[in-house]
Amino acid sequence: MDGSAPYNPRTVEEVYLDFKGRRAGIVKALTTDVEEFYQQCDPEKENLCLYGFPNEHWEVNLPAEEVPAELPEPALGINFARDGMQEKDWISLVAVHSDAWLLAVAFYFGARFGFDKNDRVRRVGGGVGSRMQEVGRPKIATADTTDAVGHRRNL
Amino acid sequence: MDGSAPYNPRTVEEVYLDFKGRRAGIVKALTTDVEEFYQQCDPEKENLCLYGFPNEHWEVNLPAEEVPAELPEPALGINFARDGMQEKDWISLVAVHSDAWLLAVAFYFGARFGFDKNDRVRRVGGGVGSRMQEVGRPKIATADTTDAVGHRRNL
Repeated sequence: MDGSAPYNPRTVEEVYLDFKGRRAGIVKALTTDVEEFYQQCDPEKENLCLYGFPNEHWEVNLPAEEVPAELPEPALGINFARDGMQEKDWISLVAVHSDAWLLAVAFYFGARFGFDKNDRVRRVGGGVGSRMQEVGRPKIATADTTDAVGHRRNL
Repeated sequence: MDGSAPYNPRTVEEVYLDFKGRRAGIVKALTTDVEEFYQQCDPEKENLCLYGFPNEHWEVNLPAEEVPAELPEPALGINFARDGMQEKDWISLVAVHSDAWLLAVAFYFGARFGFDKNDRVRRVGGGVGSRMQEVGRPKIATADTTDAVGHRRNL
């Protein structure tokens, strides 16, 4: 699947788009495509993982062959848990693991960034930089935070 | 190691303490105990992982035998990368994967929590609850955010 091609987001915005695309893929697997997802997670198969890709596709596949993997890996062996619990509990389990994975990937990509709050506020606020200005414009920072975190909250 | 005993943080504060303890263990492995950590990550051994535990201990060990694992798993096979790169680059690689893992574990535990901002602000602000009061007290919310995120920033 082309979504699995190496991809290297270089800005905060690109990391967020990566996260958003992968998340959309996972959500699709666990909602509209849930029957197909369920069928693919056959406990008779080997250790399987649910991958979400930046292009909003999902895939149930074996884990990365090369270790350590290029990116944090999703939960391994979700198929083995499928038949031992109620379907909705199993879907919830996969969802929680997928959330944790999505965040791990985003923070893995994000590790290269500094965390200069002024820089971030400066970009968001359109050139506003001083500490005083930052304190004086809490709504800009808040709006940004709400936007970024809001999507995660709905996971 | 007793730090690996099942542990189930039930509040935001407990999740944070869990994160903080695990993080301290990982930091120890990668700084003061780095020689011992390096030696333990023998590429001749099987797939190894670096675990940090809530009691601030660390351990290099094989991955969880049971899959899907009870918690998100740290990067697998860090030992195989050890001799193929400069030591400091390898330590950085392990550090970045460990950061992503720490966050995955924290968010995995956190999945059970709701995200009612008012509730959070109410607790932090000592009983202050209304939307208006929340808007009128941005420093409380900001201080809380800074404190919580600050620790992550220094990872």
